[in-house]
Amino acid sequence: MQFASLDDIRAFCRDLPEGDAGAAAAAARRQQILTKPPGSLGRLEELAIWLARWQGRERPRLDRAAIAVFAANHGVAARGVSAYPAEVTAQMVANFAGGGAAISQIAKTAGAELYVVPIELDRPTHDFTVRCAMDQEEFLDAIEIGYRALPERCDLLAVGEMGIANTTAAAVLCAALLGGGAVRWAGRGTGVDDEGLARKRAAIEAALEFHRSILGDPLAVAAGLGGRELAAIAGAVLAARQRRVPVLLDGFVATAAVLPLVRLHGSILDHCRAGHVSAEAGHRALLSEIQLDPLLDLGMRLGEASGAAVAILLLRAALACHNGMATFTEAGVSDRDN
Amino acid sequence: MQFASLDDIRAFCRDLPEGDAGAAAAAARRQQILTKPPGSLGRLEELAIWLARWQGRERPRLDRAAIAVFAANHGVAARGVSAYPAEVTAQMVANFAGGGAAISQIAKTAGAELYVVPIELDRPTHDFTVRCAMDQEEFLDAIEIGYRALPERCDLLAVGEMGIANTTAAAVLCAALLGGGAVRWAGRGTGVDDEGLARKRAAIEAALEFHRSILGDPLAVAAGLGGRELAAIAGAVLAARQRRVPVLLDGFVATAAVLPLVRLHGSILDHCRAGHVSAEAGHRALLSEIQLDPLLDLGMRLGEASGAAVAILLLRAALACHNGMATFTEAGVSDRDN
Repeated sequence: MQFASLDDIRAFCRDLPEGDAGAAAAAARRQQILTKPPGSLGRLEELAIWLARWQGRERPRLDRAAIAVFAANHGVAARGVSAYPAEVTAQMVANFAGGGAAISQIAKTAGAELYVVPIELDRPTHDFTVRCAMDQEEFLDAIEIGYRALPERCDLLAVGEMGIANTTAAAVLCAALLGGGAVRWAGRGTGVDDEGLARKRAAIEAALEFHRSILGDPLAVAAGLGGRELAAIAGAVLAARQRRVPVLLDGFVATAAVLPLVRLHGSILDHCRAGHVSAEAGHRALLSEIQLDPLLDLGMRLGEASGAAVAILLLRAALACHNGMATFTEAGVSDRDN
Repeated sequence: MQFASLDDIRAFCRDLPEGDAGAAAAAARRQQILTKPPGSLGRLEELAIWLARWQGRERPRLDRAAIAVFAANHGVAARGVSAYPAEVTAQMVANFAGGGAAISQIAKTAGAELYVVPIELDRPTHDFTVRCAMDQEEFLDAIEIGYRALPERCDLLAVGEMGIANTTAAAVLCAALLGGGAVRWAGRGTGVDDEGLARKRAAIEAALEFHRSILGDPLAVAAGLGGRELAAIAGAVLAARQRRVPVLLDGFVATAAVLPLVRLHGSILDHCRAGHVSAEAGHRALLSEIQLDPLLDLGMRLGEASGAAVAILLLRAALACHNGMATFTEAGVSDRDN
């Protein structure tokens, strides 16, 4: 087991693997001599350099892009916090595999391999309004599942989730670690009505009150107030950092899932980019809190890694330019200094 | 010739072809039954419905996506308004064809056919600070070139440009038709320095003063203060409207190119979307003025249709979902009403 205790995770976060500064510098130099005004490809340039840093090569590749979608169920769903019944989690897992879900289609468009990882769907976490969602062992098991989900050969990982009621878990993590209460972080998720939203806020406030003694410990918060798919996302992001694989985060839940790690080490997400900002209330504020600037802003709020998967297309455009464009010299184009 | 006079253009704009409301409604109904919360794909849903409207089919396709890049030269370049010499226009046209430019690479990534249309590169427009850039015949010729550039079979058109000094022409069009002077609309283009920017502003103010008697006539402004590649973009957008082909506009110059048309008829751009908002000063304000909400905001400022071409990737993701996803019934997933 990679992380046999919470202390193992804390130790990892104290001594993080870094990217390849030389490869990043070489990629940045290359961007300066391609046939365009310097900087004129904007974030496409920054993305190419970021990929170079974490892949450790001047000319990064996306031959093997992976999308991992972790799925789990939540005890708090019984409190009527979602517009959909809990059985939808398992039904959607089948839909992912069958090719009928949005992420199945976007993965194909993005040329990425889709890995769907259901985690004990028949064993929801406990209702965190009255006890801990997971004990330490259950939490570490879910971290481990995420850690092992990173494919052996992988140029990029996009991470997302499926789990009825999991925006409630995400909101409570944010409220616990960033403050502001349910009002700041509870949104409509899949489209809950006013009464459902009121139940969701009540559940969040109840959870914050019940767990008030652990709110200063990010990993205790992740175990006590999170979910298995959120823990797995954190595990996958740790594995990617270990092996220097760049990561695209999906929406509100996927970002909330790594917030406890950020609380352990501020630069734990240097190998990550936010694929998009979702329409779910709280995501924009969360990204701003952890200083991630999203690549896309399309009003999406589906989860399933769908926003991150669309962002893979931007990386493909960035690398096509970075690797395929001619230099001023090669193309015989006059540079500005001529 | 499609438009033998300016009045022909005015007449076309008075009686615009409309999209297929039935196809749009059918596409919107389909979005409601796919396996996702309604609306959760955000703008990807809106884009699929928009494509349905203009392609006239419930399930739109992008089998033949075209990118048209129009190139021309500008008399005002002699006033030192650009960071690059005028010969770069022709050199970049060769680079487009050779595959070394950003647009060559992005077109390949987006699965689109690239059409490069140089327009009399050895005959720059006149310096519009002291006379009209084009006479009426030259303007109509450029419109016609754009009109004819739309491929016979085409599911989507992305339009862009190349032309040293053409952000000066774009800025002067905006200032002439929207007010605010050079301060509001002149940016650094390809990266002009402070002195160059001062020369650019002076040229814009001089042009506004010289042409003050025609500023109330949008087509006279387009001819007197625009450029051949801008007129060609307007012609291509008119052809696309005529044949109900959806259009992605590129950056500041491409958007300024259609501003005179918007002044003739407020809904002339219903078949168009803004592929992105560029980093060029003025583009965000221009999009806001004509109520276009850009799909991407990546700090790009290259032109060449590069931003619009990246946005084609978003359309592909939108259509993959729209056409390929399962319905709740097909997938056996419980809908929220169950």
